Amino acid sequence: MDGVSTSQTSAVPFLKGHGTENDFVIVPDPDNVIDLPASVVGRLCDRRAGIGGDGLLHVVRSAAHPEARAMADEAAWFMDYRNADGSIAEMCGNGVRVFARYLQRAGHVESGDLAVATRGGVKTVHIAKAAPDSGADAGDITVSMGRAALPGQTVTVTVQEHSWPTQNVNMGNPHAVAFVEHLDDAGNLYAEPSFSPAAVYPDGVNIEFVVDRGERHVAMRVHERGSGETRSCGTGACAVAVAAARRDGIDPAATGVPVTYTVDLPGGRLMITERPDGEVEMTGPAVIVAEGYIEPALLAQTETPLG
Amino acid sequence: MDGVSTSQTSAVPFLKGHGTENDFVIVPDPDNVIDLPASVVGRLCDRRAGIGGDGLLHVVRSAAHPEARAMADEAAWFMDYRNADGSIAEMCGNGVRVFARYLQRAGHVESGDLAVATRGGVKTVHIAKAAPDSGADAGDITVSMGRAALPGQTVTVTVQEHSWPTQNVNMGNPHAVAFVEHLDDAGNLYAEPSFSPAAVYPDGVNIEFVVDRGERHVAMRVHERGSGETRSCGTGACAVAVAAARRDGIDPAATGVPVTYTVDLPGGRLMITERPDGEVEMTGPAVIVAEGYIEPALLAQTETPLG
Repeated sequence: MDGVSTSQTSAVPFLKGHGTENDFVIVPDPDNVIDLPASVVGRLCDRRAGIGGDGLLHVVRSAAHPEARAMADEAAWFMDYRNADGSIAEMCGNGVRVFARYLQRAGHVESGDLAVATRGGVKTVHIAKAAPDSGADAGDITVSMGRAALPGQTVTVTVQEHSWPTQNVNMGNPHAVAFVEHLDDAGNLYAEPSFSPAAVYPDGVNIEFVVDRGERHVAMRVHERGSGETRSCGTGACAVAVAAARRDGIDPAATGVPVTYTVDLPGGRLMITERPDGEVEMTGPAVIVAEGYIEPALLAQTETPLG
Repeated sequence: MDGVSTSQTSAVPFLKGHGTENDFVIVPDPDNVIDLPASVVGRLCDRRAGIGGDGLLHVVRSAAHPEARAMADEAAWFMDYRNADGSIAEMCGNGVRVFARYLQRAGHVESGDLAVATRGGVKTVHIAKAAPDSGADAGDITVSMGRAALPGQTVTVTVQEHSWPTQNVNMGNPHAVAFVEHLDDAGNLYAEPSFSPAAVYPDGVNIEFVVDRGERHVAMRVHERGSGETRSCGTGACAVAVAAARRDGIDPAATGVPVTYTVDLPGGRLMITERPDGEVEMTGPAVIVAEGYIEPALLAQTETPLG
């Protein structure tokens, strides 16, 4: 173990992990003693000057965090989720899976059911029991993502010379789902696709481009408002599965039977189940790739001279 | 230190660091026992599914590596440099600084002079002694970058409606240096700037856009062939300093006096000195941001199902 010091008592531990290539810096801090202002989170998530991540998962006991104390009886752990710029977010479906994987790995929870406190309320999580000889990260994780709403209004999405009608789906955030012939038709997605009428989404909309891969099996690309094209979007995959089910004439609320779609994203595969009560469950992988210690200088609340 | 296991005897150590935001995964492996095929390097450098870096620094004793054994008398350590796609590269100026910082941090070398074996030959490095109360990463590091050649042929570089003549400089790799009015004139650089006549560089050219900031002080942006715009390019900064000196009527070979230019890049500041014998020296920071252990699954030589 040449070269890695083993006694860095002043350093802060971290892990890096991802769920379908939506990646996170994980900072375990059960007693909520690590100060993580936006500037520090931004530095940790910086992909070149820091560790790098789409966001940061600050792992705190609910009883130790003012925003989660009221949920402590229901959910022992609070996902204090931060965006890469340090701003606060309510929820992140891929993040919850990685958060649960960390708790399991650290021995805080076993496989099975788990409640996680988030700013979007308590989320129900299920960690599947892994096969005996599979790795530490085996066993998919299921997260309840809430109910989908299908507002009546639709928009037309345009990329260069192509235009498509969309099915609009709200998963707490708005999605416009376009069924297309080829995923390449959406081009490089460097620029935000336009949509009309623009007044439907004054704050923008996440846009999914979807093709069929088989029975109840689709593949998608996503342009997230404010972020551009991403490797994975949990709420987007849920919106796509619900839109595909309706297109296929399937509605669990009417039949009383849950339906599951396989959704392939650039970063991996998610299974989306819509239950008769409307609840949408997302199941997918969560992987830890490294763990160690953050250099104290990166956590200091001063700017570096050339930062 | 909740959540980070301290006894992962099967895991491989790593560090992450950067030089002017050119960032690297560092894998210390003095005895050259870790197998790092291109597929594994690619996975480690993947910014979302792996740890993330512009490249990988495999730190090996020269005597333990077949490509470096002949240099072992001159230079005890070999920088087995890999590009992010796993391909092999001869040299990386920002990488050598980070490599030297790691050796210093691990206690393998002290501040002062150091010889590093690379595929581009033995490089002379100097680690400045840091001020007493400065941090572990203080003290700039100087690397000999070789001699600049100024071939007679020039190209005209065009970005959208702007065109500039260039000073062509070869630092082992080709550079076309354009002095511009504003760095913004080069636009977003999403696409490769065009140059003509194209026949001068059949394999492409790195293009620098430069403005003056003061006496012997310039700022630059760079478009690296094959990589797009980057936060820093060591050979590019050297090419820019030499081009600026000639433009300013300064030639150390004629005067017998070294000249130093300050070059600001998006990722930080480099000091470039051209000596009377033609040797170009680059001085700049090198920072370690984290260290720990890589998950064994990431190093396995099998593809993950959804990788």
